[in-house]
Amino acid sequence: MSDIQIGMSKRARRTYSLDDIALVPTRRTRDASDVDTSWQIDAFKFDTPLIGAPMDSVTSPATAIALGKLGGLGVLNLEGLWTRYEDPQPYLNEITAMPVDNPIAATCRMQEIYAEPIKPELITARLSEIRESGVIVAGSLTPQNIQEHYETVVKAGVDIFVIRGTTVSAQHVSQNREPLDLKKFIYELDVPVIVGGVAGYTPALHLMRTGAAGVLVGFGGGSAMTTRRGLGIHAAMATAISDVVQARSDYLDESGGRYVHVIADGGQGRSGDIVKSLALGADAAMIGAPLARAEEAPGRGLYWGNEAHSPEYPRGVRTSLEVVGPLEEVLYGPSHHVDGTSNIVGGIKRAMATCGYTDLKSFQRSEVTLIPYGG
Amino acid sequence: MSDIQIGMSKRARRTYSLDDIALVPTRRTRDASDVDTSWQIDAFKFDTPLIGAPMDSVTSPATAIALGKLGGLGVLNLEGLWTRYEDPQPYLNEITAMPVDNPIAATCRMQEIYAEPIKPELITARLSEIRESGVIVAGSLTPQNIQEHYETVVKAGVDIFVIRGTTVSAQHVSQNREPLDLKKFIYELDVPVIVGGVAGYTPALHLMRTGAAGVLVGFGGGSAMTTRRGLGIHAAMATAISDVVQARSDYLDESGGRYVHVIADGGQGRSGDIVKSLALGADAAMIGAPLARAEEAPGRGLYWGNEAHSPEYPRGVRTSLEVVGPLEEVLYGPSHHVDGTSNIVGGIKRAMATCGYTDLKSFQRSEVTLIPYGG
Amino acid sequence: MSDIQIGMSKRARRTYSLDDIALVPTRRTRDASDVDTSWQIDAFKFDTPLIGAPMDSVTSPATAIALGKLGGLGVLNLEGLWTRYEDPQPYLNEITAMPVDNPIAATCRMQEIYAEPIKPELITARLSEIRESGVIVAGSLTPQNIQEHYETVVKAGVDIFVIRGTTVSAQHVSQNREPLDLKKFIYELDVPVIVGGVAGYTPALHLMRTGAAGVLVGFGGGSAMTTRRGLGIHAAMATAISDVVQARSDYLDESGGRYVHVIADGGQGRSGDIVKSLALGADAAMIGAPLARAEEAPGRGLYWGNEAHSPEYPRGVRTSLEVVGPLEEVLYGPSHHVDGTSNIVGGIKRAMATCGYTDLKSFQRSEVTLIPYGG
Amino acid sequence: MSDIQIGMSKRARRTYSLDDIALVPTRRTRDASDVDTSWQIDAFKFDTPLIGAPMDSVTSPATAIALGKLGGLGVLNLEGLWTRYEDPQPYLNEITAMPVDNPIAATCRMQEIYAEPIKPELITARLSEIRESGVIVAGSLTPQNIQEHYETVVKAGVDIFVIRGTTVSAQHVSQNREPLDLKKFIYELDVPVIVGGVAGYTPALHLMRTGAAGVLVGFGGGSAMTTRRGLGIHAAMATAISDVVQARSDYLDESGGRYVHVIADGGQGRSGDIVKSLALGADAAMIGAPLARAEEAPGRGLYWGNEAHSPEYPRGVRTSLEVVGPLEEVLYGPSHHVDGTSNIVGGIKRAMATCGYTDLKSFQRSEVTLIPYGG
Repeated sequence: MSDIQIGMSKRARRTYSLDDIALVPTRRTRDASDVDTSWQIDAFKFDTPLIGAPMDSVTSPATAIALGKLGGLGVLNLEGLWTRYEDPQPYLNEITAMPVDNPIAATCRMQEIYAEPIKPELITARLSEIRESGVIVAGSLTPQNIQEHYETVVKAGVDIFVIRGTTVSAQHVSQNREPLDLKKFIYELDVPVIVGGVAGYTPALHLMRTGAAGVLVGFGGGSAMTTRRGLGIHAAMATAISDVVQARSDYLDESGGRYVHVIADGGQGRSGDIVKSLALGADAAMIGAPLARAEEAPGRGLYWGNEAHSPEYPRGVRTSLEVVGPLEEVLYGPSHHVDGTSNIVGGIKRAMATCGYTDLKSFQRSEVTLIPYGG
Repeated sequence: MSDIQIGMSKRARRTYSLDDIALVPTRRTRDASDVDTSWQIDAFKFDTPLIGAPMDSVTSPATAIALGKLGGLGVLNLEGLWTRYEDPQPYLNEITAMPVDNPIAATCRMQEIYAEPIKPELITARLSEIRESGVIVAGSLTPQNIQEHYETVVKAGVDIFVIRGTTVSAQHVSQNREPLDLKKFIYELDVPVIVGGVAGYTPALHLMRTGAAGVLVGFGGGSAMTTRRGLGIHAAMATAISDVVQARSDYLDESGGRYVHVIADGGQGRSGDIVKSLALGADAAMIGAPLARAEEAPGRGLYWGNEAHSPEYPRGVRTSLEVVGPLEEVLYGPSHHVDGTSNIVGGIKRAMATCGYTDLKSFQRSEVTLIPYGG
Repeated sequence: MSDIQIGMSKRARRTYSLDDIALVPTRRTRDASDVDTSWQIDAFKFDTPLIGAPMDSVTSPATAIALGKLGGLGVLNLEGLWTRYEDPQPYLNEITAMPVDNPIAATCRMQEIYAEPIKPELITARLSEIRESGVIVAGSLTPQNIQEHYETVVKAGVDIFVIRGTTVSAQHVSQNREPLDLKKFIYELDVPVIVGGVAGYTPALHLMRTGAAGVLVGFGGGSAMTTRRGLGIHAAMATAISDVVQARSDYLDESGGRYVHVIADGGQGRSGDIVKSLALGADAAMIGAPLARAEEAPGRGLYWGNEAHSPEYPRGVRTSLEVVGPLEEVLYGPSHHVDGTSNIVGGIKRAMATCGYTDLKSFQRSEVTLIPYGG
Repeated sequence: MSDIQIGMSKRARRTYSLDDIALVPTRRTRDASDVDTSWQIDAFKFDTPLIGAPMDSVTSPATAIALGKLGGLGVLNLEGLWTRYEDPQPYLNEITAMPVDNPIAATCRMQEIYAEPIKPELITARLSEIRESGVIVAGSLTPQNIQEHYETVVKAGVDIFVIRGTTVSAQHVSQNREPLDLKKFIYELDVPVIVGGVAGYTPALHLMRTGAAGVLVGFGGGSAMTTRRGLGIHAAMATAISDVVQARSDYLDESGGRYVHVIADGGQGRSGDIVKSLALGADAAMIGAPLARAEEAPGRGLYWGNEAHSPEYPRGVRTSLEVVGPLEEVLYGPSHHVDGTSNIVGGIKRAMATCGYTDLKSFQRSEVTLIPYGG
């Protein structure tokens, strides 16, 4: 695989982003109305393979409920404003009101706002609110905070537990503290766990062996560029998804039949990106920006990730997005936008139909091409 | 062909756009005045291999007539303003008057304007107007609307029937309705049929087997970028043309001599692009933007495609183009523009002569090179 | 060589521009003061391998003389303003006064100004003026005008005769007129002939067989971009030079010792570009823009080529360049510019010394690398 | 290695910049707090592998001391303003006050300011000032000035002697003067010598054989772009570092155990770039821009290199950088910047931990990938 000689002492493998590839129709076309985009993880079935990212600019209890009612899954960030403040609205107002052209001041203020401790009772309250609506309940913690808060989460009741950090490995080593034993943790938990980000065949295979129901592919979503600039770390998404899909297949073999779901997480700002993730083999897509463009989004047209307010090493900035319309229109149209930001499910169905597929599993076999850069 | 490893579970083929290639002169040069650009499809012979795209911003009955008189072929969109409105001018005026910097409002209004039903009597009237001028008559329908309107078209009389959608396959499968049997349709029709868009060897070969006289290579013309962003689908034109040219050659063999014309449709904004299409083996070029730059163009310097007003999933925006001069000057000069937008036929002839060719068929054997991106 | 599959029916060779490559120093360095940049063609020896392009914005009789006195060779365009007008200054004034943001009006006016016929007596006068200064005299004609004017040129007396067009082949074929028999023409002429542009091994080899003393590599100089857009024709300079250098070597063999000089012509806007041409094997560089930046340049900071006023198919626009300083400073410094536009000879010497070479012939063996695009 | 055919007569090797690569985490992650970034050259040990470049905009005696106290090494340029002027502050004020949009005037004035001769007594005074602070003392001379000034330097006392030019070879050849015999010079000197820039395996191996304790990889730092434009010379950093690392390894073998340190010098504007250099095998990074962004930096937010005021052939311009905060914050945070300009050591530690490493030597074995350009 490492077939490129960077210099005499180092080889590297060439990797590809979603922008580098495109789908090609085959000799058969279908009706978009015949396409079924449903998928299932554990006992939970969804009409559409879209998962709302646990980011405060994307998912509030209210939008988690709305997304659930529209056939997707909203994941609440259990370390965000809703579990730090009884009434997060003034803080959201403040964050969304800060001008985007002064990122340093905004980063400082966000670091202050997010310094407020997480309140277990708010975790309980937020999850209950979602559960009462009748939709499937999912919340996320970072690996760093799991040991402190997972019992609260489990007691409050979640259907799906998400462990999400920039990079999560199955084998975290620490000299000063007992790290989380992910395998034991997942084994003892009653609910299915989705865990990531991860990229690469071997790290993903190890994560699958922990018993996770799903893995998140990608590092950092909205902060990918600053992660690359600051840390030199980057996972080109097309390659990352395809590698983890191979791990899924090999783990299915080795485990005698456990199918771990692969969820693309990052770099999917438009419906065409989601289409490509699914064609590369992802079972579902965790998305941020597309949902942050909905009228109901807590970020009100601003978009930021969880790394943006890290106290030591913040990454990612608030980005201004165009508000497209109500969430339902964002997902199902009718669209008046021509850039893949509206009628996302319609776009997925149309793409699948044009390429001759009517279900997600067979769509994973799609032929893709490498297109001229920016082409 | 799929020799690039995107990731461990997916391979892809590298594809090329027209911008990626250039022609190289050989050891012999010719006089441009000795070059013959004529071509023939079925019984119809043309001085120049240029076909006006069936788009409302490009081809009106009047410009179809003008292009025919100047040696090309104009194809009227039979689902556009001219068949929806007795007098389309006020709607054209309105569309061309909307500012380009508010694309959403423009898309909404275009969706409303194009919601007006197609009137069979206007199909008849527009085709008659073109026929009366004495030029070759061609009109286009999308696959979706053929069954409803083709009898009107046939009765009104066309010399060449064009079936044009973003992607047209020979084998459309539908669960809820009887899809168009393209082979049977073409067989029973009396006039030659040009059908597309298509890309790829196999889809093109199947389309040729339906009995089509010509196939259109490419997806969506002016909306290619938004098709890529929204649907993740893209056909890099140089590769697409070259693949379909191979299908032409293999079908010629398999059919014992049927030559199906390959018509490049999309991405040919300047004369150099058309030159490249022809050098890659296309028999003719269906063009939009170059003709939309003519003073007579109905779009008056604005350019939009048929996907721009799709009610469910619009793609492509109105683009502002520089008005270059009268149609005759656009085609035959004299040119005062240095960017390949004027004296297009002169440019084609000069390029062919510089590379040592005097007819289109031998020009298809041209040597091409891959040039540095953007180079 | 054609190892890239553009599509199933067409292969292509990958080509490289000067921007794609860079030099790498070896284990030895030299003093710049030890470097000798002299070169010789036929009986004529020059201190520096720089030839002023025959363009009205670059070379007047006065700057041809100045360049000659500074160790280079100025070539007067014998079809430019100086041979069309007794006093060209008002026309130069007019051309340089037209705003660059209205290229169409400028193209029209230049087409008018250059419609004035060439006057044989002015050819004679201009060449005499240069000859009287004592420098080596060189003038250029296009292939189209040679038969009409060459006797005037020969009678007026030139040391080096230049035949320069966008593309010049050894075998021009015409149905309506007797084309120039280049081989016979050169054989009968008493003075050495430099001819081009050409690109590619075979066309260059044929041109060398005509008896030319030198060939110009490249198409169109300042109009390369518009030639690509309008005609689809492009020669990536690094590849073109290297191919023609191979032809030089093979022709040296086949002819039993005739060394035809290879002169890079086009795309050399900065000293680094000239350095790369020489490292790729060129014997000298014909340059336009670098000299157009001299205070004495007739274009007064504006730069345009001979294709810019073509009556039928103009290509290239007037470009605004920064005026750097007197011609002597442009060539020999001292430099106060950091972008390779000043002290060009100093830059060449410094580059050669850094790479360990002290003469041009051995510098042609330099190692080059492919650098990241735009890198 | 030279596997790309530029043209028929020239092959080239493809090279890569730091922007072309990225790190990929492995299956194991670590705690950032467990990471040790210390390194040692000769008898000198440092907490952090960061060396301040000897440039007047980056390193003054005061910032050399500050950097030393913070665990790094500051190298004073012994040919800069501090050794030309008793009080350099007025000249620094003048240089930093000149507008960046008039680079020619600034270059001229800098050429004047730097025309002032170097004063041996100021060399002595500046080095003494640093020594008195208790930090490790390092000063740099160019190869051209070593013979004149090295005795002053040695007498004043330095711990580490740096010889730094754009390109330094072990075998400089001159016809008119006795060049520096680097091997003899280093052998006779009592202190360890770091020498460069160099790129390429063979030149680096020869430089290692001179007895140098370390080599600087790269040409020209802040002036790399203008070196490429003016001289056509460029070293893509990722390839350059990897090649010199191979030379280090082979020289270790051939010398029976001498480990020459490889120090990346150039193109490392953000922490991610430094991370990549270390992952490619560099032992340390010489940095300019990141330190020029500190509040204490003498350039006060402006950044220029030593080539910017070359009397004959200036290269590089003053660039305006954002002032990030105090030097300590630039190195150790806490960061409020999301672009890799603050908490640089924190960024390095976090990257190493994420990739599963806790010391620099094993980090050199990191896996890297080639990422899509600009990706």
